Formats: sequence, structure tokens, C-alpha cells
Amino acid sequence: MNLKQQAASRALEFVKNGMVVGLGTGSTTRIFIDSLGEKIKSGELHGIKGVPTSIASAAQARALGITITTLSKNPQLDIAIDGADEVDPQLDLIKGMGGALLREKIVEIFARTFIVIVDESKLVSNLGLSSPLPVEIVQFEAEAHVQWLNSLDCEAHLLRDEYGNLVETDNKNFLVHCIFPNGIGNVGELADKLANRPGIVEHGLFLNMANKVVVAGSSGTRILEREE
Amino acid sequence: MNLKQQAASRALEFVKNGMVVGLGTGSTTRIFIDSLGEKIKSGELHGIKGVPTSIASAAQARALGITITTLSKNPQLDIAIDGADEVDPQLDLIKGMGGALLREKIVEIFARTFIVIVDESKLVSNLGLSSPLPVEIVQFEAEAHVQWLNSLDCEAHLLRDEYGNLVETDNKNFLVHCIFPNGIGNVGELADKLANRPGIVEHGLFLNMANKVVVAGSSGTRILEREE
Repeated sequence: MNLKQQAASRALEFVKNGMVVGLGTGSTTRIFIDSLGEKIKSGELHGIKGVPTSIASAAQARALGITITTLSKNPQLDIAIDGADEVDPQLDLIKGMGGALLREKIVEIFARTFIVIVDESKLVSNLGLSSPLPVEIVQFEAEAHVQWLNSLDCEAHLLRDEYGNLVETDNKNFLVHCIFPNGIGNVGELADKLANRPGIVEHGLFLNMANKVVVAGSSGTRILEREE
Repeated sequence: MNLKQQAASRALEFVKNGMVVGLGTGSTTRIFIDSLGEKIKSGELHGIKGVPTSIASAAQARALGITITTLSKNPQLDIAIDGADEVDPQLDLIKGMGGALLREKIVEIFARTFIVIVDESKLVSNLGLSSPLPVEIVQFEAEAHVQWLNSLDCEAHLLRDEYGNLVETDNKNFLVHCIFPNGIGNVGELADKLANRPGIVEHGLFLNMANKVVVAGSSGTRILEREE
């Protein structure tokens, strides 16, 4: 069992019968959703409903026979499970390199318990050191938003696919990757600037959100908990 | 000359040769753009470039022969002219009942001077007293965002067109109108909550943005200036 499988498998232990579960997006979460589907199929888990955070995760869950629901029908999620691109010592996160950051954040703020699953390579002393910060922007005047992002001590560029086309999110917006050569100085301040800027739809800083982080490493799996 | 025409005509005096002009959206601004087009056609003004805040305003300007440009090519606008739905004594605004609030805000923050044109019926002692606050939200889980907005001491509902279909903005998002029966208590606090909420793309509170407000009234036109 590789590290991602170990993390996904450990997280599955937190899912109980009858729960409404936020289903994240990305390679580690894909493994989690597969395992969840297996447990439902085998009858080990029942009464589970999933709230997906992307078109891809919704399609995967549906194919596995997991019942899908929405936030408006179930505004209180018992739990949400998702990967992350970076986790710092405060359990603040960079997420969304897979492009689903907006829907992930929308769903995961509704979770009573938000559990992040990563392998140990995702742990960093300071956010921004190993991963770019993904930012979702509106298509209108996209270049102007990128220019503004470049004024924030980072190197920002619009994300393109393998054919050179600008990447569109599930919400028909564009994605920018912001590279901070020395990491992000003050994450709270940056999050506030990004939130208040017109044209920036959402950013990949997930602050004060994760309750637990399941970390799979070469010496086993451990769980970090947020200090309240 | 009706009040909207008076306001538009007075604002036109601020436009000088060679300026890059942010072109707002709405009934009063439509009159302003028409007048601007006439002055360019007659040769009274030349070297003007416009940055439109909606597909409608771009089409109107193009039809009038006004040169159109973008923020990325002209990141510093000399001036922007737009209407408003409400103006309070601090010159803070509610804007966007025409549905263009996001593009308006994106363009107007780049203006050296932002001039608002209204008739005197738009002056209020407190924002929210006469106009709903328009809020642009992502389509994904729209009902959940409306539920959350309803928790903010307002009555929020998704905007529909005359056929009952949900209104889509130029950016393919939905619009919500939030009615505050007693006006908005603390506009700064509300703006901050809305800015930080995932799924809320932009809101119609334009705070600390207007430099001048041209007010046309039955007794003539006057100009209010922001105290710095």
C-alpha cells in the first residue's frame, strides 16, 4: 500500500453510517472515494451521502454508486475529506493545484470536521515554499488581475493546458499560479488582500479550516490535530 | 433635458482629450456614452479610449466609434464614469442593480478619478434603505449561498428574468438581491464578510471608491466630493 493509499484508508475510519461526507478532489482523494465506494458496496457502510467538490469527483462517486446530494439539502456536513498541496505547522493549507479550489472551499466550510489526507512530502515549515498558490480569477480582464498578483511579491502566470490553451475551471474561470520564491510572508494578510480584490474569485489558502491532518509517511501514519 | 441627461452632460466636462475613460453600465451611463460618442464624432474630443464594464456598454461604445481598450493595455484609467443605485453621505455606494457590478468594480478601482452620476432620488442617509444589495455568486451550490446570505439580517433571493429563468451575468454567474428592511447596519463589516465568503464572487458595496458624485436635481446640478 503506497502512502496515498495509507492516508486514504486511515481517513475512512472516521466515516460512520449515515454521515453526509464532503468529497474532495485530487489524486489522494480519488483513492479515498474508491475505498468509500467499496465499503458501501460491501455493505460495511450504509446511509452515506456525498457532496462532491468537482465535476470529476461527482462523476467518480456516481459511478461507484455513492448517493450524491447538495449543500442546500444538507447544509451541515458531518465530515469532509480532501487532499492538500501543502500543510504548515498550524494546519493551514495550500490547496487547489488540481483546479478545484473554489468548490472545495465552498463545500468544506460546511463540514463539522474537515480531515486532510496527505503524504509527508506535503508538510512544510512555511506555506508557499514548495507549491505555487493557485488563484481562481474571472476571465474578464484576466491579464490585469495577473499583473496585480505579480505586485504581491510573487511570480504569477495564467495556467495553460498541454495544448497551450488557458485552463478553465468547473466554474468557467481561469487559474493563476503564484510562485513565492521565499514562501508566503503573512498568510492571513495575503488571504485578506486576495479576498477583497475584485476579479479574484477565490484563492488556495485554506486557513483555520482543517481539523485533522492524516499524514502517511515511511514510518507509518499519524494524525495531526488543530489546537483550538 | 431630464435629470439623467443633466448629470451625464455635467460629467462629460471632466473628460479631456487623450484620456482613457472607464465606461460604466446602466441607464444614466448609457446617456453619458451617447454624449461622449457625439463629442468624439464632432471632433470636439479626440484621442479618447474607453474601457467598458459590460458587454452592453462595449457594444454601445463600438457602435458609436469610440476606441475600445483593455485594463492590461492601459492599467491606469484617467477617469471612470458610472451610475449608482444609492449614494450615502460618505459617498459610499450600492451599485450593480443592472447586473454589471463585478466588471464595474474591476474597472473602476483602476481609475485615478471615479465620478458617479445620479439623479437626486439616489441619495440616501443609509445604504440599503431604498435599493436591494446585488451580490454575484457562483452557480455551483447557489441555493446554499442564498441561505447563507439570508443569515445576514436580509431577505435574499436569486434574480430571475421575465420568463422565470435565473439571470446570468456577463461572467456566467448568478445574481442575488439582498433586501435589508432597516438598511445595512455596518457597511464595512458586511463588505468584509461578503468578500471572504467562498462562492460570493463580488458584492455591490462600492466603499471608498467614488471621488465625485454629480447629482442632478430639480434645482440644478451639484457636485459632491469625497473628503480625503
